[in-house]
Amino acid sequence: MNVLLVFAHPERASFVGALLDTAQRALTAAGHNVVVSDLYADGFEAAAGAADFANRANPDYLNIGAEQAHAAEHAAFAPVLQREMERVAAADLVIFLFPMWWFSVPAILKGWIDRVFAYGVAYDFERTWNHGVYRGKRAMLAFTTGAPAAVFEPDGRSGDLERVLWPLHGGVLALCGFDVLRPFTAWAVPWIQAQGREQVLAAWSRRLHDLDRETPLFFHPLEDFGEDRRLKPDVEPGTPAQHRGPRKHLD
Amino acid sequence: MNVLLVFAHPERASFVGALLDTAQRALTAAGHNVVVSDLYADGFEAAAGAADFANRANPDYLNIGAEQAHAAEHAAFAPVLQREMERVAAADLVIFLFPMWWFSVPAILKGWIDRVFAYGVAYDFERTWNHGVYRGKRAMLAFTTGAPAAVFEPDGRSGDLERVLWPLHGGVLALCGFDVLRPFTAWAVPWIQAQGREQVLAAWSRRLHDLDRETPLFFHPLEDFGEDRRLKPDVEPGTPAQHRGPRKHLD
Repeated sequence: MNVLLVFAHPERASFVGALLDTAQRALTAAGHNVVVSDLYADGFEAAAGAADFANRANPDYLNIGAEQAHAAEHAAFAPVLQREMERVAAADLVIFLFPMWWFSVPAILKGWIDRVFAYGVAYDFERTWNHGVYRGKRAMLAFTTGAPAAVFEPDGRSGDLERVLWPLHGGVLALCGFDVLRPFTAWAVPWIQAQGREQVLAAWSRRLHDLDRETPLFFHPLEDFGEDRRLKPDVEPGTPAQHRGPRKHLD
Repeated sequence: MNVLLVFAHPERASFVGALLDTAQRALTAAGHNVVVSDLYADGFEAAAGAADFANRANPDYLNIGAEQAHAAEHAAFAPVLQREMERVAAADLVIFLFPMWWFSVPAILKGWIDRVFAYGVAYDFERTWNHGVYRGKRAMLAFTTGAPAAVFEPDGRSGDLERVLWPLHGGVLALCGFDVLRPFTAWAVPWIQAQGREQVLAAWSRRLHDLDRETPLFFHPLEDFGEDRRLKPDVEPGTPAQHRGPRKHLD
């Protein structure tokens, strides 16, 4: 199968770099075709803007979504975006490797998402979630943290990891139709010793070897929602972000 | 009071630009001192990297956190970062104005967070949450969406807005010690007509006028957690991200 590794760390010799090395080795050894997008090495521009488009629907007013739709129709994306879009299109599996910064991806990877998962390419109003463009493909997050696992337990100081990851798991990957695999997390890497490091990398290698047998995370199909875009009354909320309880912040 | 408006939209004439105009006008009229960081106009670099530092603790290996700590100690941040850090330090209130892209901030604003909220400046191991560097300051998100409000209801298609915002509200702002005000959301702006637009901007202006009387969102003080970094048994989880129920994705 074709695997795209999107690598977003400024230091190739980092722990995330070791996750990348391990993934390249393990996947290649298993006979897969591996392509790496090394965002820092490529000097990938993070900020979506006018330079994303070879020509414009409206040169006087920059509406990114509208220009993405136009560019998708007229093959008018900047070459670097076209290349990344083709890599995603060719991939059966996309793995994002990054350090968790501020409960999310580094800006350079957010920029890859903003610019490569363009309207008209990765989604449009007719193609989202289980009807998404990338259905049939799988995706997963592989990341390091500075903090230990306990802080991301449901009652941990940082909040439940599965809720922290919802904007990425749900809002990006599942929304584009990917089957989302459980994340791989290397915890508290600044404090890990050589032996611990080898153990994590070995676990990562084993994980990659068995990915085929994994069941993806659950997201509600669009058919679970009514015309009002809310879960039908008889559907039990089944994700980390959907619920019927009271709100804590916004009621 | 001093207000910092961090504006992250590539089109100054956008709806977010109108939110910025309204905020400048309303806050200035109320006698406040307003400073704007216009990230696109400034060509703000989003990707944290070697250029963030005038000199390095370790020129051979780029650990962003370690270099931030070093730069904080030796006043060695790049001038643009130093300027933004000083703006935050001087602000009583920071408002982030942006279009919601992929359930989060645009990459250029994530980059501002990655680079300006540096270790040793905006937080360190001794100074987080209610002991955070920015305690006494307030912060809020003001953003537009393409989707209508219903999709971000607790049982909506995109998941509960307060859970979607947790990485920003909790993981960035509250973690740095800010008192976090409720967000201001301009819903479904691509489909809004001129009259609707004026109504939203008027509501935004009224909101700004009354900010002083608002109660910030609740986040657990560090004293609510045990040595294991999890909520003490007698503390009821009170945020959108902390709970004791079963997990949906990661159990």
